[in-house]
Amino acid sequence: MTIDYDVQVFPRVSLQCGRELHDCTLAFKTYGELNARRDNAILFPTWFAGNHTHNEWLIGPDKALNPSRYFIVCPNLLGNGLSASPSNTTGRFPPVTICDNVRLQHQLLTQRLGIERLQLAVGTSMGAIQTFHWGALYPEMVARIAPICGAARCARHTSVFIEGVRAALTADAGFEDGWFHAHPERGLRAMARVYAGWGFSQAFFRAELDRTALGFSSLEEHIVRFWEEAFRSQDANNLLTMLWTWQNADISANDVFNGDYAAALATISAKAVVMPSQTDLYFPPEDSALEVQHMPNATLQVIPSVWGHFAGGLGVNPADVTFIDARLRELLSLD
Amino acid sequence: MTIDYDVQVFPRVSLQCGRELHDCTLAFKTYGELNARRDNAILFPTWFAGNHTHNEWLIGPDKALNPSRYFIVCPNLLGNGLSASPSNTTGRFPPVTICDNVRLQHQLLTQRLGIERLQLAVGTSMGAIQTFHWGALYPEMVARIAPICGAARCARHTSVFIEGVRAALTADAGFEDGWFHAHPERGLRAMARVYAGWGFSQAFFRAELDRTALGFSSLEEHIVRFWEEAFRSQDANNLLTMLWTWQNADISANDVFNGDYAAALATISAKAVVMPSQTDLYFPPEDSALEVQHMPNATLQVIPSVWGHFAGGLGVNPADVTFIDARLRELLSLD
Repeated sequence: MTIDYDVQVFPRVSLQCGRELHDCTLAFKTYGELNARRDNAILFPTWFAGNHTHNEWLIGPDKALNPSRYFIVCPNLLGNGLSASPSNTTGRFPPVTICDNVRLQHQLLTQRLGIERLQLAVGTSMGAIQTFHWGALYPEMVARIAPICGAARCARHTSVFIEGVRAALTADAGFEDGWFHAHPERGLRAMARVYAGWGFSQAFFRAELDRTALGFSSLEEHIVRFWEEAFRSQDANNLLTMLWTWQNADISANDVFNGDYAAALATISAKAVVMPSQTDLYFPPEDSALEVQHMPNATLQVIPSVWGHFAGGLGVNPADVTFIDARLRELLSLD
Repeated sequence: MTIDYDVQVFPRVSLQCGRELHDCTLAFKTYGELNARRDNAILFPTWFAGNHTHNEWLIGPDKALNPSRYFIVCPNLLGNGLSASPSNTTGRFPPVTICDNVRLQHQLLTQRLGIERLQLAVGTSMGAIQTFHWGALYPEMVARIAPICGAARCARHTSVFIEGVRAALTADAGFEDGWFHAHPERGLRAMARVYAGWGFSQAFFRAELDRTALGFSSLEEHIVRFWEEAFRSQDANNLLTMLWTWQNADISANDVFNGDYAAALATISAKAVVMPSQTDLYFPPEDSALEVQHMPNATLQVIPSVWGHFAGGLGVNPADVTFIDARLRELLSLD
């Protein structure tokens, strides 16, 4: 399968870790056209282990994110294999932060695409983390944000969950000196099986939606065809890069906020609709509620779903898509 | 450390899988004395990857489980390294079920210890699973059951969680042909790190109780000293045996109930107090509530705790111990 997208090359990018990326590529896909006033842009960054095609369930002529009305820009996360990543870069890839990603996206919008104002920054999961950062780092530029199934920083429990995912992957014998030198089939399958417990909820499996809604004949088939298929062909070093980015995500871990988490959230002047899933096991709604308390123009809209994190993922449950799309429509209608 | 316990040897044990165990050992520890009327016995089986010493937080002169009043028998789970296990048995160890365990325990009580009546069967986690089985398989023998942070069968979500734990362990290169031929340090550490995300709750880590209550200086120290220490010295084949037992647990998967789950629960005539933890990630209280609906003499008492599964584990949180002990005291006072 060929994936169609554009690439912007940045000759020299300074990272938060102190290292530089040379000829750093940022892969992005646009949907719709920028209007003459350049005021119809929406940013929609990607999530963990995905690319812009995994955003397309929320984009369409019948959706709030309508390409005939908006110019929708989907930048790919560093490390995802399309943007600069271990898999396409010589030498050991440096650790990159969400802040690094967002600053690069800002250059893409302002320098290449001529965009000075965003109607909306929307994203799910790691994409949602990026929208929080956009709201805090470029408050004058972002009119609205809609973080779906995400957070402004990696919660402590989420960090432990990620540690388990990483441990399963790196239990593979091919992991040496902090790097995979060959494709770790066993580790990737193990990681997929660990992830399988976290992506949906207890209630999802109690209701047997893996069978009745997703159509798998058994739990084993669900794990193999949904989870192993998602991970087994990925580049393992890319996955480690993205896991690091996620685990170290913190809206205030930069020279703007210097660790003041509450101040960073308070800076988000954008109208915000924060949408956790009621049953998300690693972005629980309680964390979102605490974040909204610090944000001046935010409302909490909990997705009433048993689909766990996947209430915000891939459009697998039509009722969740309807809920999210309706909230985005309301948000975009606000002046 | 030497662990003191008794052993009963069964020359020939027929298992549900059709195989037999020869000279099968059942390790057990007793606390207190059986009275002359032989009517003061309590059964308290062990949990996953533990032994009878891990039950002692709930036993004591100041506790409902008072050895000066009751004769408390703690049989060790097959596969735990004290009872018959891969680590002390020649050849490939067969798959053993909870039903196999409970039937063996029944022989221990009736044939060796001369016990025909139990005041109580109590247990946590896999121990709780055994108490449900006791209530259904020997209803005339069990006056009361108190399953804590457990269930009558392995829920579908729990099965997926266990699959992730097993996958992390067996990602180790030492796992071949369904067996570990050497001690898999890497796999055991990976398994521990996966488990770390499940044992406590999101709210536990949000409140930083790993630091303030357990005294660890960082998440990494918590993972290494609590979780890796718990698993890294275990026999990996023993762990696989116990994981299989857990994943295949079902109160009705036997020739008494032939898969009729509701009938098995309805057979539990014992007075029952079912105690899930409010925040348990793999034995969620919703499952317990459904079970209680099928049980004629059961009440649901949700432990109001953010300690997740460990509300019922090792006595790590004094408030949870107080709650559980008070419910056991009430239960034992009922005629």
